[in-house]
Parts: sequence; structure tokens; C-alpha cells
Amino acid sequence: MKPFNVTILGCGSATPSKMRNPSAQIINIHDKLIMFDCAEGTQIQMRRFYIKNNRINHIFISHLHGDHYLGLMGLLFTYHLFGRKVDLHIHAPKDLRQIIEIQLNVSNSVLCYSLIFHELTPDKLLLVLETKTFDIYSFQLKHSIPTWGFIVKEKDTGLKVNKDFIKQESPSFTEIQEIKMGKDYVNTKGILFKNHEITIAGDKLRSYAYCTDTLYDEDIIPYIENVNLLYHEATFAHDFVEVAHNKFHSTASEAAVMALKANAYQLVIGHFSARYEVLMPLLAEAKVIFENTILAEDGLKIEVSCPC
Amino acid sequence: MKPFNVTILGCGSATPSKMRNPSAQIINIHDKLIMFDCAEGTQIQMRRFYIKNNRINHIFISHLHGDHYLGLMGLLFTYHLFGRKVDLHIHAPKDLRQIIEIQLNVSNSVLCYSLIFHELTPDKLLLVLETKTFDIYSFQLKHSIPTWGFIVKEKDTGLKVNKDFIKQESPSFTEIQEIKMGKDYVNTKGILFKNHEITIAGDKLRSYAYCTDTLYDEDIIPYIENVNLLYHEATFAHDFVEVAHNKFHSTASEAAVMALKANAYQLVIGHFSARYEVLMPLLAEAKVIFENTILAEDGLKIEVSCPC
Repeated sequence: MKPFNVTILGCGSATPSKMRNPSAQIINIHDKLIMFDCAEGTQIQMRRFYIKNNRINHIFISHLHGDHYLGLMGLLFTYHLFGRKVDLHIHAPKDLRQIIEIQLNVSNSVLCYSLIFHELTPDKLLLVLETKTFDIYSFQLKHSIPTWGFIVKEKDTGLKVNKDFIKQESPSFTEIQEIKMGKDYVNTKGILFKNHEITIAGDKLRSYAYCTDTLYDEDIIPYIENVNLLYHEATFAHDFVEVAHNKFHSTASEAAVMALKANAYQLVIGHFSARYEVLMPLLAEAKVIFENTILAEDGLKIEVSCPC
Repeated sequence: MKPFNVTILGCGSATPSKMRNPSAQIINIHDKLIMFDCAEGTQIQMRRFYIKNNRINHIFISHLHGDHYLGLMGLLFTYHLFGRKVDLHIHAPKDLRQIIEIQLNVSNSVLCYSLIFHELTPDKLLLVLETKTFDIYSFQLKHSIPTWGFIVKEKDTGLKVNKDFIKQESPSFTEIQEIKMGKDYVNTKGILFKNHEITIAGDKLRSYAYCTDTLYDEDIIPYIENVNLLYHEATFAHDFVEVAHNKFHSTASEAAVMALKANAYQLVIGHFSARYEVLMPLLAEAKVIFENTILAEDGLKIEVSCPC
């Protein structure tokens, strides 16, 4: 099975605390690294958790509250300093472009790599990155300023072809692609191999959704339904539900209800208020509603997995 | 003697490294905290080194390269989050105002405290902060973009009045001020106390100069002459003098020559390139020229002291 995992670089909210850095995470999907959010200190967290920053080509910024993007300029300058050559794609709310440009201008900086800006738009569910083996979609969340969630989905790349058969018959690349799509195979001696004899089903398709910052919002359920791993913010425990709603945030219980209603396989809660040194009460209240819940933690690497 | 010391929060250049954070430092002068530069991660460094950030009312930004100011927005948001009430003064190149304003605007933030912006201007030596017991002046450095150095100078607050005399005669506050300025004292019984009998000389006046980033530049000598503690950048060792000059930086040897020619008492070198894990060669080459040199180090607290 190809790699698909999430490394949390920061799961605190609002300000760096001694327990946790603000939002940032790295998704390793099929050995491509994608960044979701980039709070102040993210570069330092990457070094701390052995993430190779030169393998990141796409950065997604959910919204323009400082605790989700203030580490980006430093990272852009660092890429420049180390002579990056590869294009860097930023997917973000439109105003970030101006914030970047003005800071490049005042420092007389002309980056040595191409920065390609993709403006997030208020569509319901929009394909924002398409690759051969996975896609990323954006959708809007309900927060005090325009905010987006993201879902990363593996693509169906067809059946798996039996390795012994490949060794024995040496089919061409094109022939393998045809077999993966369901075709039978006839070798040079005219012997027929029925498709079901030389293939097995492909791996189950996995998906990961990132939902922060947001009120509890059932409108997003169609976009994240059946997701394997759901990261949902849980800034507060449910006894602070009024505070949470006033600040356009969710509680741990609400995150769990969302996971339950969306039929997620696993829930990871994060974006914790700095008021919580101990997070067990948040985990406990979520687990009552949705058992397969874990707590985000800086440095934690979570495999995106399927039900057995 | 009143406190006057400098705590280094970051002494690296360009990018955070595992050895050191980029530029920021706290000057404690007479129990007032002043910040010079505010790189990404400065908030975290303040927590690490037990600096109470709510005691800072003035922040000076030398120039708009990211490694000198990218931690400022996060700090401004943190002050807001914790309900700061006291005015905060930012002394910085003019474009920083726009960089701050746009980031407040996109996040719909109206700070709960007053942010008072003081634009640095290209004067030779300009008084930018005046208090009862110390002053701060700015002056221009020679870097690739407009850059300022700063010097903090204690003020002459007069003679010290003998404590036993005060206990015995209980002079009024106004009378004490007059004695400090050189007047004699006559008590209610008509007894004359000659000024020299009831006073001793005040403490020697101390000063601290912050010079980063800059080429070696003798034009600044008149501004920093006889300074007690000189922080001068030494981004490179002298075998990299060409690289240093191409990047508008100084070498450790040049920093030492500057300390010597300016008749400084002590030199602290900093703003080290990330290429140097070991700094002893930089210290050695500076000490050959100017013996009383020390290396900056994150967390180091340096007393601004006088020759014995």
C-alpha cells in the first residue's frame, strides 16, 4: 500500500504555547509532501520532526488568521536562500497574494523559484489539485472570515496485476495498463489469460479531510462523507460551547458528532485552545460520541487507514 | 546601579537553524524592557528565556528583511488575544506600517490596544525615544535596503545624595533634586551642609549600540564612540570577506576593528551565518584585534558594564 499519512506540526490555536505550536501539518501521499497551513514557527517544527521541506511543492492555507499562515513568508525566504529551483504552488485566500508581494517588494527580493498562486474560491466543492494518483478538493467552512477545508482523495488506478504473471510473460507498459483496466491478455503463443486470473482488486481508496477553523456545520457532510481520517477542530470542550460559537469554533463533542454523521473511520481533534494543558477531557467527551477518536499532538504521525 | 542588560533571543542570520534563531533581543534598561528586532519565533524564544512580553512597550525594527521582523505580527496578535491595554510603540521603516495594516485588515482584527507607529527617517543621528533616565537614538547603516542602528544611552540624573543625610534631615523631593544638581542645603536650624559633604558622584553613564545588518562603515563611529557595549554583526569570518561585502555584511574582524576605532569597552558579535556551527574561529579573529569580545548566543544575558 502506498504511503498516506499526516504529520502534525502544530495543533494549538491562536498563539504558540509551551505545549503546542499553532496550525500546520504535512500530508505524505504517495511520497509527495503537501502542507496544510503554515503558522509561525513551522520551519522550526519541520526541522524538529525531520520533515524535508524541499520535498513540498504545494502549500494550502485555510484562512488568513495569523495562527494559520504567519510562518509562510519565512519559509518562502528560506527556499530562496537555499536556491530552490522547483515551482512552489500556494493555494490560499486571494489577499495572501498581496501580503506576500508587499513583503517581497520591501525587501527587494526576487525569488529564485516560481511562486504560483492559486486563489481559493467560494465554490461548494472544487477540485484544486489533480494528480495521477490523488486529487485535492476545497470547500468552504463557517468561520469569522472566509475559510476553506480540504479533502485529499486517492484515485482509482485500477486492478493490481499479478507479479508472477508479469515476470513470466513480460507484458508491455501499455498492456499492463489495459489489464489494470479489466482487459484479458493473449501472449505471443496465443494463450489466453482471463483478466480475473491475473489480477487482484486494487487497494481500497483512502481519503483525508482537514476542517479548521469552523463552527459545527452539517453542510460539509456531503463533501467529507465516508472519509477515512477526519481532522476536525475542537478548540474547546463542550462546557465552553457558547465561547466556542461566539468565536466561530467547535467543541470536541461537535467534532465527534461531525465524524459520526459523516461516517468517518477515524477522527483526530486539534486546534486546541491554550487554556488546555491536559486534553484528556476533550478526548473523553469526543470518544463517548465517536469511539475512534485520537488527539492531535505536535510531531504525531497518523496513518490514513481503512476499516479492517 | 540600575539594571542595564541585553538578552539575546536570536543571533542567527537569514533563517532559523538548529543552533540559533534569527535576530531579536531584549534590552532591560532601568527595569523598562525594549525589543530590538523581532524575527519569526521570537515569542517562543521569550517564553524559553523567561521574558515577560507584557513589559515591552517599545519595539525597534532595524530593517525589513524577514529575519528581523517576521515574528512581529504574531506578537501583535498575541497581545490582542491576552487583552493588552497599554500602548505599544513600533519604531520601524515606514513600509512596515502597511504590512501590519493589511494583515490586520484581512483578519478583520481591531486590536484592543493602541499601536503607535514611529517611522524611522534617514537622519544622521536622531533622538527617537526620550525618557527621564535614558534616551534612544537611531542612525543609518549601510545595507542592501534602508537599515538603522540604535544606541541606548543613560542620562545624567545628577549626583547621588548621601542616605544618612536624607535619613537625618528629611529634605523634600524638590530639595533632593536641587542637591543632586549641585546646591548646598541649609536645614531649619540654619545649619549649612556644603554640597560636596552630602553627595557622591553619580554612576558612570552607560550606553549600548546595536549595529546589524551592515557593511563595515566608519561613518557611524561618531555616533557610537565610547559605547560600553557594542553589538556588531559578524555574519562571516574574514576568509569570506568578499561574500560578506557582496551581501552587505561584515566579518568578525571588521566588527572588531569597528569596536577598536569607536573605543568601545566590550564587543558582542552576532548575526552569524547558518554555515557556522562552531563560532570559535570568528571569536578568535575578533579577539586578535579587540580583546574584550564575546560571542552572542541565544539566551545569553549581557550586563552593560563600565571599565573598572
